[in-house]
Amino acid sequence: MPRRPTLEFWYEFASTYSYLTAMRIDGMAEAAGVEVRWRPFLIGPIFASQGWNSSPFNLFPAKGRNMWRDVEREAARQGLPALKRPDPFPQNSLSATRAATYGMDYDWLVPFSKAVYETEFSKGESIAEPQAVVQILNALGLDGTVILKAAASEGNKGRLRVNGEEARSRGIFGAPTFLTGDGELFWGNDRLEQALAWAIGDRPGAMR
Amino acid sequence: MPRRPTLEFWYEFASTYSYLTAMRIDGMAEAAGVEVRWRPFLIGPIFASQGWNSSPFNLFPAKGRNMWRDVEREAARQGLPALKRPDPFPQNSLSATRAATYGMDYDWLVPFSKAVYETEFSKGESIAEPQAVVQILNALGLDGTVILKAAASEGNKGRLRVNGEEARSRGIFGAPTFLTGDGELFWGNDRLEQALAWAIGDRPGAMR
Repeated sequence: MPRRPTLEFWYEFASTYSYLTAMRIDGMAEAAGVEVRWRPFLIGPIFASQGWNSSPFNLFPAKGRNMWRDVEREAARQGLPALKRPDPFPQNSLSATRAATYGMDYDWLVPFSKAVYETEFSKGESIAEPQAVVQILNALGLDGTVILKAAASEGNKGRLRVNGEEARSRGIFGAPTFLTGDGELFWGNDRLEQALAWAIGDRPGAMR
Repeated sequence: MPRRPTLEFWYEFASTYSYLTAMRIDGMAEAAGVEVRWRPFLIGPIFASQGWNSSPFNLFPAKGRNMWRDVEREAARQGLPALKRPDPFPQNSLSATRAATYGMDYDWLVPFSKAVYETEFSKGESIAEPQAVVQILNALGLDGTVILKAAASEGNKGRLRVNGEEARSRGIFGAPTFLTGDGELFWGNDRLEQALAWAIGDRPGAMR
């Protein structure tokens, strides 16, 4: 039996467009027959290496105004609840990303990741404090305190760092990013359809 | 009889994604029953005001690598010829934009604009020199020399400047940008479908 095609979904918890993808990728991948690997990472260090000390949506105000309006519209198109903006934006995503990195070995990674996004952008609540992450984990029937402690171990922090290096070395410069099994990179929620098509071998123009 | 809905298409000749839009907007707008107003402008002064002295695709190399690959893929999806990169990129678009600004009062604006893009991104040839623009106009059966002289008049240069101010004041920060009759802004070739839907009153979630 042929192996099921896979697609890596690299996401950053502070990212509004990663949120839009997180809420729609499972259904679409299922329909396309593609298996998704959820890859949490931190975009901050990559932005910093480009000389950005905050989100480009804060650094470039006209771009930021458009982003909020655009995400409102796209959330409505996806049938998501009205977008609520967390304050401050972007949220510090370190605790949540540490927990998600630890969760890569567990089947709660996906429901946890979606719950973080819903807290942040459907409810507009903070995800920055470790206690907020503990509560999200607890609400999933997990032991948030134990998980957060494990997530703060040197081993897990190293894994998070290594994942960030992997992101950079594979050409990632923003979130969300999709990487196919043969290394093709697609950037942005707008490219989910194309990434899935590529993963199953549907490549217009038969390039390469 | 109700007035036909209109959509403004703001485009920059140096912009790869404006090229993708230029080659598909007419057919899609026709199908949607929307009238398109082609609005040539220069993005350079707006980028400069954000502190960028070149294209962000040059300033941020990983972003640039992805852009070229993405535009190749999207061109194939649209059934366009294999993309050729002009050297240098971005091309100096001043002469072509002056001519297009002058052309806003003439019915050759749209075929001229498409011919500029084809020269630049289908053939990979320069559009920077006034003589290149003259040749494109001549090939359309126009008198390129006369038009370029008129396009260099103080009146037309003033119009180009005013259009740039209008772009900035209406929130434009990149190209292509779509503006609906009620002032809704959509940025990027990826938003053409949404902009057309908005123009004809198809607004998911009934926002506002």
